[in-house]
Amino acid sequence: MECLEDESCGRRLHMTFTRCCSCESLKKRLPFLQWLPRYSLQWLQLDLIAGLTVGLTVVPQALAYAEVAGLPVQFGLYSSFVGCFIYCFLGTSKDVTLGPTAIMSLLVFVYTLGDLSLAILLAFLSGCIQLAMGLLNFGFLLDFISYPVIKAFTSAAAVTIAFSQVKNLLGLQNIPRQFILQVYQTFRELPSTRPGDAILGILCIAILLALKWMKDHTSRPYRSMSICHRICYLIVWIMTTARNALVVVGAGLVAYSFHVMGSQPFILTGKTAKGLPQFQLPPFSEITPNGTRTFSEMVQVIGSGLLIIPLMGLLESVAIARAFASQNKYRINTNQELLAIGFTNILGSFLSSYPVTGSFGRTALNSQTGVCTPAGGVITGLLVLLSLGYLTPAFYFLPKAALAAVIICAVAPMFDLTICKTMWKVKKLDLIPFFVTFLLSFWEIQYGILAGAFVSIIILCYPIARPEIKVSDMDGLVLTPMSGLSFPVMEFLKDKIYEKTLTVSPPRSVTLDFTHVNVIDYTVAVGMADLLSEFKAQGVCLSFSALQPHLLRMLSSSDLLGLQNLHSLKTADPVFAQDSEDESTQPLLHNGIVSLP
Amino acid sequence: MECLEDESCGRRLHMTFTRCCSCESLKKRLPFLQWLPRYSLQWLQLDLIAGLTVGLTVVPQALAYAEVAGLPVQFGLYSSFVGCFIYCFLGTSKDVTLGPTAIMSLLVFVYTLGDLSLAILLAFLSGCIQLAMGLLNFGFLLDFISYPVIKAFTSAAAVTIAFSQVKNLLGLQNIPRQFILQVYQTFRELPSTRPGDAILGILCIAILLALKWMKDHTSRPYRSMSICHRICYLIVWIMTTARNALVVVGAGLVAYSFHVMGSQPFILTGKTAKGLPQFQLPPFSEITPNGTRTFSEMVQVIGSGLLIIPLMGLLESVAIARAFASQNKYRINTNQELLAIGFTNILGSFLSSYPVTGSFGRTALNSQTGVCTPAGGVITGLLVLLSLGYLTPAFYFLPKAALAAVIICAVAPMFDLTICKTMWKVKKLDLIPFFVTFLLSFWEIQYGILAGAFVSIIILCYPIARPEIKVSDMDGLVLTPMSGLSFPVMEFLKDKIYEKTLTVSPPRSVTLDFTHVNVIDYTVAVGMADLLSEFKAQGVCLSFSALQPHLLRMLSSSDLLGLQNLHSLKTADPVFAQDSEDESTQPLLHNGIVSLP
Repeated sequence: MECLEDESCGRRLHMTFTRCCSCESLKKRLPFLQWLPRYSLQWLQLDLIAGLTVGLTVVPQALAYAEVAGLPVQFGLYSSFVGCFIYCFLGTSKDVTLGPTAIMSLLVFVYTLGDLSLAILLAFLSGCIQLAMGLLNFGFLLDFISYPVIKAFTSAAAVTIAFSQVKNLLGLQNIPRQFILQVYQTFRELPSTRPGDAILGILCIAILLALKWMKDHTSRPYRSMSICHRICYLIVWIMTTARNALVVVGAGLVAYSFHVMGSQPFILTGKTAKGLPQFQLPPFSEITPNGTRTFSEMVQVIGSGLLIIPLMGLLESVAIARAFASQNKYRINTNQELLAIGFTNILGSFLSSYPVTGSFGRTALNSQTGVCTPAGGVITGLLVLLSLGYLTPAFYFLPKAALAAVIICAVAPMFDLTICKTMWKVKKLDLIPFFVTFLLSFWEIQYGILAGAFVSIIILCYPIARPEIKVSDMDGLVLTPMSGLSFPVMEFLKDKIYEKTLTVSPPRSVTLDFTHVNVIDYTVAVGMADLLSEFKAQGVCLSFSALQPHLLRMLSSSDLLGLQNLHSLKTADPVFAQDSEDESTQPLLHNGIVSLP
Repeated sequence: MECLEDESCGRRLHMTFTRCCSCESLKKRLPFLQWLPRYSLQWLQLDLIAGLTVGLTVVPQALAYAEVAGLPVQFGLYSSFVGCFIYCFLGTSKDVTLGPTAIMSLLVFVYTLGDLSLAILLAFLSGCIQLAMGLLNFGFLLDFISYPVIKAFTSAAAVTIAFSQVKNLLGLQNIPRQFILQVYQTFRELPSTRPGDAILGILCIAILLALKWMKDHTSRPYRSMSICHRICYLIVWIMTTARNALVVVGAGLVAYSFHVMGSQPFILTGKTAKGLPQFQLPPFSEITPNGTRTFSEMVQVIGSGLLIIPLMGLLESVAIARAFASQNKYRINTNQELLAIGFTNILGSFLSSYPVTGSFGRTALNSQTGVCTPAGGVITGLLVLLSLGYLTPAFYFLPKAALAAVIICAVAPMFDLTICKTMWKVKKLDLIPFFVTFLLSFWEIQYGILAGAFVSIIILCYPIARPEIKVSDMDGLVLTPMSGLSFPVMEFLKDKIYEKTLTVSPPRSVTLDFTHVNVIDYTVAVGMADLLSEFKAQGVCLSFSALQPHLLRMLSSSDLLGLQNLHSLKTADPVFAQDSEDESTQPLLHNGIVSLP
C-alpha cells in the first residue's frame, strides 16, 4: 500500500514537474511568447506612436515625482525605464506602464524622508516581497481591499499630493510634511509668496488646462478632410498629448533666458547627476554623519513601510491592470502581475530606482493612443534613456513651479467624491469605510488605507461574529447557532448561554444544538472546554446535540475538555452531558470518562 | 400622522433618558453600588489581606517595570495607585488589579524610547481612546483577536522581556533595544559581565524560585494542628507570598552595607525623585535640546503607538478579567471594563503615570488570596502611596540585578508552547496565526500581534472570498453562487464568469442564479455594472434569476448600471437580459431601459 502511494506520489511529482516546464506554463510565465509570434508591422506602428507619447509624458512627470519623493530629480528618470523593459517580457496587460507615481512617491517620502539609500533599499526589499507574494499566489490578498476604500484613498491622495506642491508653486520655504500642519503653515506663509514662481506656476496650470480642454474638444479628422486640415489636427494632437513636455520645456527655456540675462526670478531644480545610473548592488549599509548605519538599522527606520509600500505598489498596479483589461476586453493574471512588478523593483534597485508601480495617467494615455502590445514600453524606456544620456545638464534650469504645475494637473482628476451619492443609494454602510479612509488619509496617508481596509473587513465579519442564535424553551432550554462558529463568536455565545442559564436562579441546564454548525476552531474548542468546566462546577448540565463526527473529534482532541474518551462515540447524533438528572437515557460523561448507558 | 410620530419619538427619547438615569443603569455604570450595600466585616478582613499581599508585590514589580519602560523607577509607583482606586468604583471584576505590566512597559518603551513626556501624554491619549471605545460599545473589536494569537504573543513577550533583563542581571552596557540585535550583542558582551551583579542576580533568581517552590508544595494547615504549626505556616506563607518584596529589600540592604563599607560591586538604581507625584496637566508640548516639540509633533513621534497601546491595554485587561470571571464564576461587562481602564489612564496621566493595564500575575495573586470585592485594591493603592511617601530615598540602593531577577521570575510562567500540540490535534490551520505572531514578535513585538490578527481574520474570511459557485450547463449556462456576495468575492466571480463565457469562442450567454444570495455590497454592484457593460460590448447576454427585490433595488440605484428603470420590476423572480436572442419570453433591458414583454 505504502509502495503504491510512493509510486503515485512520484508520478504526481513528475507530472507537476512536466506541467511546470511545459510550453503552456512557459507561455504563462513569459507572456511575451504569446504575442511575439503574431507581431505585425501595423502593431509596430501603433506601439511606436504610443511609446513615444507616453515617453514625452513620463520624462517631465518622473522629474516632478522625484521631487515628491524628496529625491534629486534624476532619480525619477532612473526609476522610469527598468519597468518599461521588464513589463514587456513579464506583463499580462498591453496597457500598463510601470514607473514612478504620485502616491508611491509620497509614500516613499513618508518612510524614507528623502534618504536616497533607504529609498533604493526599499525598492529592493519591496521587490523581494512582491516577488515572494507572486510566487506564493498571494494575489488574493488584494481582494480584501474594497472599492470604496480604493476610491477614498485615491481622492485623499490627490488632495494631499496636489497641496504638497503648492509650496513649490508659490516658492514658499519651511513647510512641514504632515498634511494638516502643511495647510496651516502654507496659509501662514502666503504673504512670503515669491511672485516669479507664483506667476510661472499659475500660468503653467492655465496652459495645461487649456491644452487638456482642447484635447477633449477636438474631434478626430474625417478621411474626407483636406491634407491641410489633417496636418493641423496632427499638430494640435501632438501639442495636447505632449502638453507636459511642452510646458516643462517652455518653462525651462524661460528660466534659461533669465539666467543668460543675469537674473533669476524662479527657484530652479539645480545641479543634477550626469548620464545613466551605474549598475551596482543596492545599499545594504549606509554612511551617515553619525556613523555607519547597518542593514538592520536601515530596516528598522523603514519599519512598517516594508508592509505598506509593496502592498500599495501591488494594489495600484493590479487595480489599474484590471480596470484597463476590463475596458479593453482582455484578461490579466494577477499573480503574474505581482511577478512583473516584483522583478521591476528588484532590478530597478540595482539601477538606483526607488519603488515604482503602475501609473494610472500614463496607462490611460497608452491605451488611448492605441497601444497593441507591451512592446510600446520599450520605446518609452529608450526615450527615457536618451533623455538621461543627453538632457540631464538641461534639467538644471527646470523651474520647480513648472514641475509642481505638472503634478497638480496630473493628480486633480483622481479626486472624485461623486461615488458617495451612489453609495448612499446602494448601501449606506459602505460609506463608513469610505469616510474612515478619506479622513484618516489626511492624518497620515498610510493609516487611511489600513484603517479603511480594517473597517471594511470588520463590516464583512460582523455576521460571523454575531450569528443568529435561536433560543427555544419548549422541552428544556435549547440554543441553536444558525451558522458555523469561529473565534469572534465565542465571547458572545458564552454571554448568551450564561444569560439564559447560570445567571438565573436556580441555574438551568442547556442543550447546544449543533445542527447548523459545521466548522469550529481552536478558540471555540477552548471556549467550550471553559463552559463545560463551569457548568460542571455549578452542578448543571451542558449537552450537545447533532454534533457532527468531525467536530466531536476536534472537541475531544483538545485535552482541555476532559473529554479524552469521547471519540468512542461514533453515533451521528451524539448527546453527552454532565451530571444530567436522567442518566438512563443518554451517553454520559463523568470526570472525563464517557459512560454509555 | 407626523404629529403621532413626533409624540412617540418624544416618548421614546423620554424613556431612553429615564433608562439612562435609572437606578439600574447607575448601578451598571458604577458597579460598586452593587456590592457596597452588602459589604461585611468578613469581606473587609479578606480584602485587607489580599490588598496587602498584592501591595507587597506591586511595589517591587512597579520599580522593575519602570526600568523596562525606560523611565526612572518612581514612575512605576506613580502608575500603580490610580488604577487601584478607580477600578474599585468602576470595575466589574473583583480580582483585576490595574497597574504597570511587563508587556505594556515594553510597548511604552518601543514607542517613547524612554521620553517621559511622551510616555505620560501616551497614557492620556490612550485613556481617551479607550474611554471613547467604551462609550461607543466598541468592546466587540477585541473578539477579533483569537486565542492562538493571544497565546503566541504572550509567550513571545515573555521571552523578549526576560531577555531584555539579562543585561541588567549581568551588568552589561550598550545593549541595543531590538530583540535579535540584543541577543547577538548580549552574547558578544558576555566576557564583560560584572561579577557582583551576576552573582547577586542569579542568587535572587534562585531564592525566588525556591520560595515559589515552597509556596507550591506547602499544604494548608488543618484545624487540628497545634498553634506552633500554624504560626510556622503563617511565616512561610508570608515569606513565599511577599517573596518579591523580600528579595528586593534583602538585595537593597546588601547594597547599602557595601555602600557603608565604602565599596559598591552592584549597579544601583540611583537617585529618584522624592514623595508623591504632583497633580498637573499631562505635557501637551515638550522642551527638548533641539527646541520645543509641539503637541502634533509629539503625536507624530508616537505614531501607530496610538493604535497599539490602547488596544493592547484593553486586550490584556479584558482577557484577564474574562479568565478570572470564568474561574471564579461571575460575569464582567466588557464595555464597562473599557471605561474603567480609560478613566484610569486619563486620571493617571495627571499624576505622571504611564499607560497601565490589568496585570495577570497580581490579579492571580489577588484571586488566590481570596479577595471578595474590588475594595482590596484600595488597600494596595494606600500601600503604594505609603512607600512613595516614605521609602523613595531607599530606592537609591536597589540593585538593578535584583529588579531584573524579579521581572524574569514574573514573566517566565507566561511562556507556554504546549498548546501547539493541542492545536495540532484540534485544528492545524490555527497554528499559522500562532507561529506568525510568535515569530514576528521577535522582530518587533507590536507587529507580531497585528500580523497574527490579520492572518486569523484572513483565514476567517477566506470562505467569504472564495464561496462555492455551482456551474450547471443543462439548459444554457447557469452559475449559482452558494452564499452572499461581498467585496472580496468580486474578482474571483468575474474570473469564473469570464472563464466560462467570454474567453471561449464563440462567447456564451450566462445566467447568474441569485437564489442563495441575500446580501451584496457596493463593490459587487460596481462589479456587476462592469460585467453588464462588457457583455453588452461583446453582444452576449448576462441575465440574473431569482434576484431578490432588495438586491434589484440596490443594483438599479447604482447609476453605473444603466439600470435606472429596473425598480419597476417588482416580480419576485425577475430575469433581465441584454441583447437576448429570445426577447419574447423575458423582461428585457436595452440601453438602460427595461422593456416588459
